[in-house]
Amino acid sequence: MPGRATAGQAVAVRPGDMVGILGGGQLARMLALAGARLGLKSHVFAPEEDSPAFDVAAARTVADYGDEAALARFAETVAVATYEFENVPAATTAFLRERCPVRPDPAALAASQDRLLEKEFINSLGIATAPFAPVEDPGALARAVATLGRPCILKARRFGYDGKGQVLVREGSDLGAAFRSMGGVPAIVEGIVTFACEVSVIAARGADGAFRAYDVCENLHDHHILSVTQVPARLSQEGARAALDIARRIAEALDYVGVVAVEMFVAAPDASTAAAEALIVNEIAPRVHNSGHWTIDGAVTSQFEQHMRAVCGWPLGSTRRLGAIEMRNLIGADVDRWDEILRDKSAKLHLYGKHVSRPGRKMGHVTRLRLDLTG
Amino acid sequence: MPGRATAGQAVAVRPGDMVGILGGGQLARMLALAGARLGLKSHVFAPEEDSPAFDVAAARTVADYGDEAALARFAETVAVATYEFENVPAATTAFLRERCPVRPDPAALAASQDRLLEKEFINSLGIATAPFAPVEDPGALARAVATLGRPCILKARRFGYDGKGQVLVREGSDLGAAFRSMGGVPAIVEGIVTFACEVSVIAARGADGAFRAYDVCENLHDHHILSVTQVPARLSQEGARAALDIARRIAEALDYVGVVAVEMFVAAPDASTAAAEALIVNEIAPRVHNSGHWTIDGAVTSQFEQHMRAVCGWPLGSTRRLGAIEMRNLIGADVDRWDEILRDKSAKLHLYGKHVSRPGRKMGHVTRLRLDLTG
Repeated sequence: MPGRATAGQAVAVRPGDMVGILGGGQLARMLALAGARLGLKSHVFAPEEDSPAFDVAAARTVADYGDEAALARFAETVAVATYEFENVPAATTAFLRERCPVRPDPAALAASQDRLLEKEFINSLGIATAPFAPVEDPGALARAVATLGRPCILKARRFGYDGKGQVLVREGSDLGAAFRSMGGVPAIVEGIVTFACEVSVIAARGADGAFRAYDVCENLHDHHILSVTQVPARLSQEGARAALDIARRIAEALDYVGVVAVEMFVAAPDASTAAAEALIVNEIAPRVHNSGHWTIDGAVTSQFEQHMRAVCGWPLGSTRRLGAIEMRNLIGADVDRWDEILRDKSAKLHLYGKHVSRPGRKMGHVTRLRLDLTG
Repeated sequence: MPGRATAGQAVAVRPGDMVGILGGGQLARMLALAGARLGLKSHVFAPEEDSPAFDVAAARTVADYGDEAALARFAETVAVATYEFENVPAATTAFLRERCPVRPDPAALAASQDRLLEKEFINSLGIATAPFAPVEDPGALARAVATLGRPCILKARRFGYDGKGQVLVREGSDLGAAFRSMGGVPAIVEGIVTFACEVSVIAARGADGAFRAYDVCENLHDHHILSVTQVPARLSQEGARAALDIARRIAEALDYVGVVAVEMFVAAPDASTAAAEALIVNEIAPRVHNSGHWTIDGAVTSQFEQHMRAVCGWPLGSTRRLGAIEMRNLIGADVDRWDEILRDKSAKLHLYGKHVSRPGRKMGHVTRLRLDLTG
């Protein structure tokens, strides 16, 4: 009874069907776990043999994203395909789309894979970003730095995450060296935004256009890696409403289907006005997001279940939060404390099944519902 | 870094290790899902090719429980083995125990596999059961029915579940026909207990002897199959305390490690006394139990996570309940309502990935936290 549909047709997925997931990391793993609760099978496609998601997948393909024979076999088995990361090659999604429904639409990937296109898209919706300028050569870098001022940040346009592919340009920084450190890839310069806090909105849009967002998350980073998410964020009601509205406008403009995360800076409030906090969009992640991991323990529907519901064409679930909540990433050697965390009655431990912990590697996370959960 | 230990030694399981599960149904599936959240891999051993637990297992063995070569290979891969059902053959657990730690101890299986031994064990602890008598021949059946009165129930001593292998002996029932319907297997007769409600205690005992129980569950059956569980049960505080105490005494007497379920009848209260409700133990299930499924959505630690923690020698988690909760089984064609349930904002849907629904088959369950969970 598989509910396969060809690209362009309505997707009619039923429990028992197989959902394809490109990427085999912890996001794919948690998607597969959420799918299993709904009776869905997962087929995980990833290049690395020891991908954490393989351990909970009904079917596994170990192959490069450019392996068309493997992609074709993968497409044959799935009712719909999705992905855990935004850097899936465009050729891969184009190839798949001829063979099975792919959600969210690969156009959303294109908008988020390139920092320049992403910022231009966001600005085109009348939503603020940090000031930026494209950099193709050392001269453009010098002009951009002169305009935006120091410090500013030189970033590769593509394939950056967790602070990789970024150089801070300070007073006295050698612009030639900074340009060469990019290795010749297209880049942009971004002005520095002074912010009171960093927040994200985790939202979902269904195939029917329904939109549901979780409460705004406040995020703390350490060395460019998410360290802690707290919900609710310290934001005025108006600020929170504005943040959710930004996520909605972005999702609608992309005709998005699935979970999307929008990272924002909250500008330090201007004490002289009664206006809500200014919001500046930093990044769009067309996928489930680390700052939404708290939803597994802290919301009626987790972001992972929500994404599976959306890509299957099912109704979205309630995003209602169960309490004040904190999610803390276990990075590198943090994971060695697993037995201590298990003894903490207020903590929910999540481990990703990664064999080797390295500095900066996300090994798991811990959620604490801040209620009186002793006992 | 596998933490394997030979039988008799302390079990030192670490995240990343493999836990073996005998049986591949929905209980094994939910155990594997809970283990995966803790970074554990699961190796599911089951005879049926389409076992629901295979879809979420890191390793799978399709083999008969008597296949010693397959069991030996299975034991090689796991740090500890456990089971989802009590009717694992004794020869299987004895064979495994020579090769890997097995939890809970197979002695607990022996006590629950045979209705006669089970009732004798419970009575030996000073805990009440329904009156009973063993039946080896038609004469013994006649004597037992004369003593216990009609109606009473003739039950096979072994391999009964969900009302299978049972015959009600009424006024006018032909005892010869009743005896023959057992097919010559050892049986017992049980007297009928008049009860106000049926409850169960889901509890866990850790390798260190720690004991934790969830709040008492009240269960409604339909055609001998669990239909609805509601927590809290309609029981006095004293009655609830007594029920948890019974579970503790049983777990301690068995030197039990893992989750155990104890089903009880609550005798109709005697209005003439102020005593707590009388409790009569019906059955011990040495495993996670259908009446504990609500713990996935309604308790800090699910019964499945709790069982994995216990068999791994890890500290038990909090059994704290999050609210008033109802769990409703989806039996047979009930599952066809999956899309309607997905639209119900107060419902959490769980499907077991079974391909074919048959009357009486447990296809999934729905949990409702009875709070104001609209939105």
